[in-house]
Amino acid sequence: MPAKRAQTCPFCAIVAGAEPAHVVLDDDVAIAFLDQRPVFPGHVLVIPRDHFETLLDLPVDLLGPLFERVQRVAAAVEQGLGADGSFVATNNRVSQSVAHLHVHVVPRHRGDGLRGFFWPRRKYQPGEAEDIAARLREALR
Amino acid sequence: MPAKRAQTCPFCAIVAGAEPAHVVLDDDVAIAFLDQRPVFPGHVLVIPRDHFETLLDLPVDLLGPLFERVQRVAAAVEQGLGADGSFVATNNRVSQSVAHLHVHVVPRHRGDGLRGFFWPRRKYQPGEAEDIAARLREALR
Repeated sequence: MPAKRAQTCPFCAIVAGAEPAHVVLDDDVAIAFLDQRPVFPGHVLVIPRDHFETLLDLPVDLLGPLFERVQRVAAAVEQGLGADGSFVATNNRVSQSVAHLHVHVVPRHRGDGLRGFFWPRRKYQPGEAEDIAARLREALR
Repeated sequence: MPAKRAQTCPFCAIVAGAEPAHVVLDDDVAIAFLDQRPVFPGHVLVIPRDHFETLLDLPVDLLGPLFERVQRVAAAVEQGLGADGSFVATNNRVSQSVAHLHVHVVPRHRGDGLRGFFWPRRKYQPGEAEDIAARLREALR
């Protein structure tokens, strides 16, 4: 799987041991390492060993194993670093800096000043939510 | 599971059909509905039917089934709404407005102006990354 991209994908290079990283977990499914430009110290990226571009491309049978690692890393970030909570996120295509699926796990502290991506929020115009929900239900059929 | 919280948890109320929502997916594992204050129109929340507070509390055997729904919703958001990409995120405790695990799935368009939670970024001081990685490896043991 990683073969084709290994030469140009920086995360495949980390998996292959060809690029250095502060690795915190490494097994047959996933590898997790510190983001070198953290939002907060202890910001970890969890990636599948094999090269898949986004969460949408990951085979269904790897979703459970990958997120089991994400769950463990989130617990480690909270307990190991004394955080009050954590943020788990992945960008698919837009705002995705490396085209190898990576799940961000970020320690959070109350009052850390991160309002996050959750602002600003909008309101639906009359009828807009009904229309969008119908399109999504159709796409999910 | 939801029994104890059903009376006070607004998401358990949606699962129970006691509160209205624009539901786009509803099965034995999860329910997905429009966030009523979207970051962008088509912002969906995917939640387990049973009440678990955070991703860290979800039983391991539900991780695969829940994220299979998340993956499907992300594909629907991209394809059904013509988005260029998507953002998938969950807040554990800090910045978590409802204490029932919910995974945000947000449609993204290039140039949509969302710089997201990923700014500002920091740099590690000398030795800091090594120290933090060691603490995380210890917590993951």
